[in-house]
Amino acid sequence: MVGKFKEGKTKSFPPTYIVVEFSKKIQLKTAQWLVYKLTGSKQSGGAELIVRKQPSSSSQNLLLHVTCSEEKLLELAEEQEVRKKDKNGVLREFMVDELEEFIEADFKDQLLTAAEKQVLVRHEIENVRALSHEMCILGYTEYPLYVGQSIISACLHYKLIKQVFPLHDQELVKKIGGSWYKSILDERHFEDIRMYFGESIALYFQFLGFYTTALMVPSVLGFLQMILPPVTLAFFCVINIICATLFLELWNRKCSELAYVWGTISMTSFDEPRPNFMGVMGVDVVTGKLLPQAPRFKTHLKMYCVSLPLVVLCMIGAFGVMLFSFWVEDLLKQIPSIPQWVVYAPSVVYAVVVVLMNLVYRRFATFLTEWENHRTQSQYDRHRVTKLVLFEFVNNFMSLFYIAFVIQDIELLRYQLATLLIMLQILNNFQETVYPLAIHYFQKSSKAKQGSPYKELVSQIVGIEEIDSEDFQVKHALEQRTMVPYDDPYDDYLELFVQFGYVFLFSAVYPMAAFWAYVNNFFEMGLDAYKLCNFYQRPMARKVKDTGAWQRLFKALCALSVMTNCLLLSLSPALRDAAPSFSETSWFLNFVILEHILLALRQILHYAIPDKPEWVKIALAKGNYLSKQALKMQRQLKNKANIDSVTKKTLEEL
Amino acid sequence: MVGKFKEGKTKSFPPTYIVVEFSKKIQLKTAQWLVYKLTGSKQSGGAELIVRKQPSSSSQNLLLHVTCSEEKLLELAEEQEVRKKDKNGVLREFMVDELEEFIEADFKDQLLTAAEKQVLVRHEIENVRALSHEMCILGYTEYPLYVGQSIISACLHYKLIKQVFPLHDQELVKKIGGSWYKSILDERHFEDIRMYFGESIALYFQFLGFYTTALMVPSVLGFLQMILPPVTLAFFCVINIICATLFLELWNRKCSELAYVWGTISMTSFDEPRPNFMGVMGVDVVTGKLLPQAPRFKTHLKMYCVSLPLVVLCMIGAFGVMLFSFWVEDLLKQIPSIPQWVVYAPSVVYAVVVVLMNLVYRRFATFLTEWENHRTQSQYDRHRVTKLVLFEFVNNFMSLFYIAFVIQDIELLRYQLATLLIMLQILNNFQETVYPLAIHYFQKSSKAKQGSPYKELVSQIVGIEEIDSEDFQVKHALEQRTMVPYDDPYDDYLELFVQFGYVFLFSAVYPMAAFWAYVNNFFEMGLDAYKLCNFYQRPMARKVKDTGAWQRLFKALCALSVMTNCLLLSLSPALRDAAPSFSETSWFLNFVILEHILLALRQILHYAIPDKPEWVKIALAKGNYLSKQALKMQRQLKNKANIDSVTKKTLEEL
Repeated sequence: MVGKFKEGKTKSFPPTYIVVEFSKKIQLKTAQWLVYKLTGSKQSGGAELIVRKQPSSSSQNLLLHVTCSEEKLLELAEEQEVRKKDKNGVLREFMVDELEEFIEADFKDQLLTAAEKQVLVRHEIENVRALSHEMCILGYTEYPLYVGQSIISACLHYKLIKQVFPLHDQELVKKIGGSWYKSILDERHFEDIRMYFGESIALYFQFLGFYTTALMVPSVLGFLQMILPPVTLAFFCVINIICATLFLELWNRKCSELAYVWGTISMTSFDEPRPNFMGVMGVDVVTGKLLPQAPRFKTHLKMYCVSLPLVVLCMIGAFGVMLFSFWVEDLLKQIPSIPQWVVYAPSVVYAVVVVLMNLVYRRFATFLTEWENHRTQSQYDRHRVTKLVLFEFVNNFMSLFYIAFVIQDIELLRYQLATLLIMLQILNNFQETVYPLAIHYFQKSSKAKQGSPYKELVSQIVGIEEIDSEDFQVKHALEQRTMVPYDDPYDDYLELFVQFGYVFLFSAVYPMAAFWAYVNNFFEMGLDAYKLCNFYQRPMARKVKDTGAWQRLFKALCALSVMTNCLLLSLSPALRDAAPSFSETSWFLNFVILEHILLALRQILHYAIPDKPEWVKIALAKGNYLSKQALKMQRQLKNKANIDSVTKKTLEEL
Repeated sequence: MVGKFKEGKTKSFPPTYIVVEFSKKIQLKTAQWLVYKLTGSKQSGGAELIVRKQPSSSSQNLLLHVTCSEEKLLELAEEQEVRKKDKNGVLREFMVDELEEFIEADFKDQLLTAAEKQVLVRHEIENVRALSHEMCILGYTEYPLYVGQSIISACLHYKLIKQVFPLHDQELVKKIGGSWYKSILDERHFEDIRMYFGESIALYFQFLGFYTTALMVPSVLGFLQMILPPVTLAFFCVINIICATLFLELWNRKCSELAYVWGTISMTSFDEPRPNFMGVMGVDVVTGKLLPQAPRFKTHLKMYCVSLPLVVLCMIGAFGVMLFSFWVEDLLKQIPSIPQWVVYAPSVVYAVVVVLMNLVYRRFATFLTEWENHRTQSQYDRHRVTKLVLFEFVNNFMSLFYIAFVIQDIELLRYQLATLLIMLQILNNFQETVYPLAIHYFQKSSKAKQGSPYKELVSQIVGIEEIDSEDFQVKHALEQRTMVPYDDPYDDYLELFVQFGYVFLFSAVYPMAAFWAYVNNFFEMGLDAYKLCNFYQRPMARKVKDTGAWQRLFKALCALSVMTNCLLLSLSPALRDAAPSFSETSWFLNFVILEHILLALRQILHYAIPDKPEWVKIALAKGNYLSKQALKMQRQLKNKANIDSVTKKTLEEL
């Protein structure tokens, strides 16, 4: 991975944005057809991209380097309504004709960020859609296509294309990474991250930073509580919950600020559908463009009538497995002569089963969400994440609830929490670093030995040039194709979600959790940055306007933490001893009232803190006003033109 | 009130939209100045309206009839961005140039509804603002004006103008009313109401109709429950609560549909400020127009730091008064020799005190809200209503809570509920009909005797014509000036709010409440219609996009009803007897769990039922898309024009 390797030579070619790796089994004519699709003109259904093939000597699979000229990128940016700040500082849709309003003509290749260029090229690749005469993938009658289906997505689905991945810009990633892991908390890096990795990942890092800062208050409180008598517990719990609520409300605000600055705040479910959206080509009701159309009620029907019951069943199943493991453990404990390690066996088996269930369920949930056929990527992500997290919730928290409220063994709960928190950090850090590295090196070494039986396919493809085998991008493509892809920040968010649960759900029992979470997150920021730059394939940049399902899920967890904490407090022996005069019922009633007050407070905070800061509201209102005025003006002009033409006609007739 | 009286003669004048009644104490020069303001040109700060004076013989106060030509109204409609359906059925801002796109030129006076015309004329009257040299109201140095203050609003405030009221269109009101009270439930009337009374009142009737329909399920359940054993109580309560939740969620949807059709859905807090908004004239950040500006944080500061504590104090005060009345009653009961009627005296005194407190508090809340200086009428209404209802809540429900949960006398609670429900209906119907009629006839007769000492003022005013004393509008103005003004539907909403509380908060105790409410509302619809058409001054039409604060207040009441019903169920002796095996605490726990399930269900329903129906979302997205495209086009044209002018210049230079 030498960044400057032969750099001088490549200046004449545009850099590779996306690499398409074909599968070994693909037929020559299919591969050739796909190459034509990528390079062909728009009229013939092509993408008009610049494609070069990886030299046959260096790889066994056919690798295509896809790129695009700077001029074409600007045109695409206009087409895709990329928003940029003009020279007056107004954020608006970029237009090629007005290039100089946005940037000096000499620097025009710097107008679009690396992430935007990648998104534009990827959009073109994915937007190669089946024409009406293309009933199936060429050469594979068993793989049907419907009109308007994204061909590349279909090939990926049928495994004719092995992977489509963006290439790291080694120079840029070094520059960004270098300063980044050194000073993690510096706000300035977020903009670099966004420019290189796109909004989705930048938002994750913003969230991580914001959340970690918010953890400071509970951390300090956790320490204080070790010194103070346990009667103050209730007080600390209340402050913790208010902290969590405030954090989520303020994050909402922050999020809309970021979305405004990034130009993604106006994303809606009426945006262009994602490539895998199944539908009949038709005129879009909103834009009038020709896009795949599918009735939304079908999606709702599938969601509520099929997916929801199935997900609930899976959750109940997972809960059953948990109960069964507890039951077996109890059973074993009752046998007097059994050795100690056998008693712990059910826990270990359960842990393994959970991992396996998760693997299966993840595929199942992805399949269900795909089948529900959501129109936009944001909708798809939201529903997939919700399904996954509901299941994860059972696996991660149900055993703790069982210990806390059924067995009511507070000591065991505290012990379990501490263990799980540490386990979570270790396992995740392992999964994030060792696992991708291992896969990478294992794949590299196993592939290197195999030789290149498919050399001929590479040489038989015509119509595109071969990259100079000395080009550093050849080496990069080979390096990075065996790296593990980074699909989306789901796992990273999940880690924070589970941690948030451990910290806030049981803060009445284990107040130090916040501190350990804080310490972990501090290092997590650096590790996440490092792994993204070095251990994974470059992620596909994605535009997002908020944290999607996570926002609601964290909120739900926060609401739940009000209940669990109040319940834990009511069960706390220390508090109970401090007020012996209460009857059982009225003691219990106190905490029900406390809970209701806290829930009401959450609602009040929700109403009192507006989702968007004032300046964002004003900016949005201004944009709306301007465009409404423009529409009025346009109608007036049109009307005038009509009158003019009528007058002209009348005059001519006279 | 003869509708067709001398109608032929008045065809030549536009009908009177608004009547301005001056106070007796006003000086001649001030009245003359105001007349000039109303009739003067825009350049001189006038309103360019047509004004005529009521003949001096028929009235003691100076009455001005304010009207406007049809052409001018259309211009104002364009200026105020009134939205109308064009011939293609697209709802968009009306423009005079395109009149024929909206309606045949011959019918142009039918384009705007009666309510819209009234709103436009009123806006012009209120929009007469103090110029920079007008430091005070002419002739009254003690009444200062700030630059940009609405002069008419100031005169109303200083009581120089007695009232500003719209004139009923007797013919139209007869036509609308006639068919309306005969077939109350007919959906078609709502459009007539909107056209005559405006959106605010039409929305109230829509809400009343929707709510009454929703009451049918609880009514039927109430009857069923009389037959079935009391153990089924819990089941009925749960269905009742789900009904109430669904009703509120669906109303939200319905509301956004109506707002879209009425063209009010895009109303925001950035719209033109209401006349009483205090601010320094400045360039509006959104529209760039010259409008009064005031920093919003001051309003927030006033709201949270002053109003909120004061309102809470008032609520505590009212609660204290209630407790005191209960305490006195208890005390009296303990004296053995006291006669029965003395024991009830505290209740009667308390009822009178509540009425008095309400009167004082209403003025206080209005003052506070005015002082908070909200920008738009919707904001003002929302905060005023919230303040008022919080106080009303204490007065209407706290005594019931006290009986239910402190005394825990379920029989007394049922008795009180039945009494209060009937009292509520009787008092309200009295207040709505007898009160305005009595005031009207009392004022009329007392005024008629006084003679006309202010005749001279009327004859001294110059610059405007006198209306023909035979004109039927002279008679109408005289009739209607003594009628009670109908400020806003606050009292009507409040009645429904209290009723909603009686029905749903305690449905576990008095399930028949829903039926009686249903019966009452059925007649209420007719009565409300009749009173608006016949007993009150014509209300000022107001554009609204939703029920504002009421939506949230009803929702809060619904959330509260989950809690009260669960608590009542847990206290119910019938249920307790049916399950004697439970311990006190675990019995109680059951209902806490039930409550949490219901609260969660409410949240889920809230998320699952979108605020706007699909078609409204699509229509809004389409509008946004079109205007964004227009803005793009405008920029391109501008850019082209720039290039053209540069080219031209270069060519000229050559």
